[in-house]
Amino acid sequence: MTSIPRDQWYVAAYASEIGQELFSRTICGEPILFWRTRSGQVTAMSDRCVHRRFPLSQAPSRLVDDQVICGYHGFTYGTDGNCVAVPGQTRVPRTARLQPYRLAEQDSFVWVFIGDPGKADAAKIPRATYLDSPDYTTVSGMEPLKARFSLLVDNLLDLSHETYLHGGYIGTPEVADTPITTEVDDEHDIVYVSRHMDDAECPPFYAKSTGLHGRIARWQDIEYTPPCLYKLHSRIAPVGCLPNADGSDPDAFHVEVVYAITPETEHSTHDFWAVARDFALGDEEVSAFLAENNRTVVLQDVEALDVLETVISTEPMGYQELSINIDTGGLAARRILRRLAGEQVRAAAS
Amino acid sequence: MTSIPRDQWYVAAYASEIGQELFSRTICGEPILFWRTRSGQVTAMSDRCVHRRFPLSQAPSRLVDDQVICGYHGFTYGTDGNCVAVPGQTRVPRTARLQPYRLAEQDSFVWVFIGDPGKADAAKIPRATYLDSPDYTTVSGMEPLKARFSLLVDNLLDLSHETYLHGGYIGTPEVADTPITTEVDDEHDIVYVSRHMDDAECPPFYAKSTGLHGRIARWQDIEYTPPCLYKLHSRIAPVGCLPNADGSDPDAFHVEVVYAITPETEHSTHDFWAVARDFALGDEEVSAFLAENNRTVVLQDVEALDVLETVISTEPMGYQELSINIDTGGLAARRILRRLAGEQVRAAAS
Amino acid sequence: MTSIPRDQWYVAAYASEIGQELFSRTICGEPILFWRTRSGQVTAMSDRCVHRRFPLSQAPSRLVDDQVICGYHGFTYGTDGNCVAVPGQTRVPRTARLQPYRLAEQDSFVWVFIGDPGKADAAKIPRATYLDSPDYTTVSGMEPLKARFSLLVDNLLDLSHETYLHGGYIGTPEVADTPITTEVDDEHDIVYVSRHMDDAECPPFYAKSTGLHGRIARWQDIEYTPPCLYKLHSRIAPVGCLPNADGSDPDAFHVEVVYAITPETEHSTHDFWAVARDFALGDEEVSAFLAENNRTVVLQDVEALDVLETVISTEPMGYQELSINIDTGGLAARRILRRLAGEQVRAAAS
Repeated sequence: MTSIPRDQWYVAAYASEIGQELFSRTICGEPILFWRTRSGQVTAMSDRCVHRRFPLSQAPSRLVDDQVICGYHGFTYGTDGNCVAVPGQTRVPRTARLQPYRLAEQDSFVWVFIGDPGKADAAKIPRATYLDSPDYTTVSGMEPLKARFSLLVDNLLDLSHETYLHGGYIGTPEVADTPITTEVDDEHDIVYVSRHMDDAECPPFYAKSTGLHGRIARWQDIEYTPPCLYKLHSRIAPVGCLPNADGSDPDAFHVEVVYAITPETEHSTHDFWAVARDFALGDEEVSAFLAENNRTVVLQDVEALDVLETVISTEPMGYQELSINIDTGGLAARRILRRLAGEQVRAAAS
Repeated sequence: MTSIPRDQWYVAAYASEIGQELFSRTICGEPILFWRTRSGQVTAMSDRCVHRRFPLSQAPSRLVDDQVICGYHGFTYGTDGNCVAVPGQTRVPRTARLQPYRLAEQDSFVWVFIGDPGKADAAKIPRATYLDSPDYTTVSGMEPLKARFSLLVDNLLDLSHETYLHGGYIGTPEVADTPITTEVDDEHDIVYVSRHMDDAECPPFYAKSTGLHGRIARWQDIEYTPPCLYKLHSRIAPVGCLPNADGSDPDAFHVEVVYAITPETEHSTHDFWAVARDFALGDEEVSAFLAENNRTVVLQDVEALDVLETVISTEPMGYQELSINIDTGGLAARRILRRLAGEQVRAAAS
Repeated sequence: MTSIPRDQWYVAAYASEIGQELFSRTICGEPILFWRTRSGQVTAMSDRCVHRRFPLSQAPSRLVDDQVICGYHGFTYGTDGNCVAVPGQTRVPRTARLQPYRLAEQDSFVWVFIGDPGKADAAKIPRATYLDSPDYTTVSGMEPLKARFSLLVDNLLDLSHETYLHGGYIGTPEVADTPITTEVDDEHDIVYVSRHMDDAECPPFYAKSTGLHGRIARWQDIEYTPPCLYKLHSRIAPVGCLPNADGSDPDAFHVEVVYAITPETEHSTHDFWAVARDFALGDEEVSAFLAENNRTVVLQDVEALDVLETVISTEPMGYQELSINIDTGGLAARRILRRLAGEQVRAAAS
């Protein structure tokens, strides 16, 4: 594992995915077992019995009273990963312990820390508060990607692809035509990419959900906190309508599009996506429309990125790609990701 | 091939599988062609034409009068593997010869010697005479395993897994709870593992076949002769019923469970299984029940071991597992297998 | 890529396969995009956008007025491979250029030059003029082969396999029995293999198409120009019927069987086949019969060669095959192919 930054927080799941049964997901190459205890806490540990490697999430392994019993030989572990019973003897070896993981449940996600638990600081997890705010209505999902996570980072940092790959959904000519501005906050490792279209066609995704038609002002403000959390602040308003001086913006529609980009392995990714809106809050029809449409858009990306992964895996070594202005944000993101991955390598070496 | 011992006898097939047609099976990575000659003898040779590698077991290759004719260019071989005809010329090159294999048909199996034929001594093949004895009735089968053979050795040497993986079939709590005794015969390379349960629940596998109900005495005496032959002497009797001083044991039921563990490749295995009983000899219903139940149990193992193979293939190098008392037999078996594989490597080096 | 000769012409497609839409085929490991311009010319360039590698043949990429627009971010290329437009800016980087390929449309094929375009000399492409001559009627096809191209070269240079692999179609005992003569033109790198059967059984392929029955004279004259073009001049005539002294041959039937052997990757091949005849020119029934029969024969080869590729990929290093007289032509072809591949390696090194 060289390209995936370690000592980092990653989204492992939606909080709603984890209940009082065994749940397994591989994060950054590590198979992790999750469950929610009877007291409602999520717990996480290595999904591989210390004895003969059997996955603890695999039947006939089972959860009994907040303890997981291995389905192969019955090794039994508590919520802290410590082994509490083994077959054929009463003494449990002291080293019989599953690696536990640091967790945080926040903004509808379960975050897991991959790397040295001593470095885990939950205060550093980036926020996306609208995802469980009463002022927003959110639809969400997760699509498995058979491509390295950096291809999804490239994809999301350069939205000019909406015009071509997502035409008829969220793309219009103005997205590709309008130049971007990029800013990098080197202190907090955040990449900002903005594209403000002041007079643009309204794509079906926004026309049908907001009721706006004809020309619109459409702002896209990206905020990416490597490695995992990507937020697109999308503002839709009638042409000429600006936010007020005090920041209030009553005549605009705001859509917060969030992606959590979590490597499953070096060559596959969990592509979490969520769409939070501050309008039509109780309108189930709008929710259903946005959910289905955004999933279609995500699947268009998945199809394209899966192809790129195959292309990369068969191309000759040292192939050089060509970058232009639209890639400024993506290249900045790559630099940060390379540095984060490198820090981990240097730390391991010293 | 480093983990598979060579210069060893392996079960290639049940004798009943090989008739007067071409039959191919890969043993220890070597594709081998078998057929039974018109005189009833099994013959075995490399299943790859010396000319352009075409498999001699593959149509339109065919057997004519104890000679196999290659389906690609017609190279023709006799039962000793020697080439007797080639196309377009009458002279047959002297080196045109398929590698022949040493064979032995014994105890319902066809054994094949993998390695240097000069070292093959059929007297050293371990016996399982009950498999074709009139005093026993036997059911048997073979399941392909997509896992390295050592995972099956581990599995069979530690029967505490019956309680968890085979609950409802052959497992009861007492199997995992009862300590084992292990003995290693270093002179003959045999591992013995015994577990005598004097007062145990009778699992369905034995209840339905013997008619015994309630508590039983259940003895499991394993005798493993690496690399291939595994025998489990299983004794079922009413609680308190012991064998007589002269060794006779008229009130007990004896089930001889035999496994032949034959590597197909480094990462796949032929899992031969047989169940011989000394009771209800002519009872077809008992035979059908034991055959179906044991196959189910074997498939539970296959499913678990196939998963373990995948786990191992994706885990980081140098992963350490943890062993306890129940693993004493399995660890002894691994030591012998490592030594046998190492001898072959040293012999090749010198 | 070490076994595939570069700086060579290969058949990429039938001319009829390429119209005014995007068409992609991988040749010698290089994915190539083809289309026919509005003026009727075939054009070819790398099928991978210079920006982020997206295949230009993949939807939603599309062709508009002889320009291809990438379906990911809209990079747009002309028929010469030069980029003419990129998103978000008016300046197009000078290095934004797809690798163009030298092409020749000839004898019903589109030939592409793989390697250094400066070395491409279309005059050196071998001819098969009958494939679009009015004096012949041709049926043709292409079958994908999951085997290295050299296995198909072996197969076609030694037709004794017709007797075994294609019995009942084109094989009779005489093919394997009749010795061959082989000649190598070292100046022009052509291998000739001839087998003249003066009194042979007429196989169904020729009996049904020519109407000849009983014994025939059957001549097979192979002419292989490595790496790609293979021609089999097949002459069928009543026994004793010879060509006239002036070369005319009015009582014989001539079938020109052509193969173009084009590596797709190191381990897969495009197997183009064509059958041209100088008799029954307008007879649709004969055309349909020959097309279906030859395709069946090709698929018999495909099945056998796919198996051989698997055999080779699992055999130990350094496996030695055995060759006899029938292999003289194939061995000569291998020598030339090795030299052609080696020249390229030496050129790259210097």
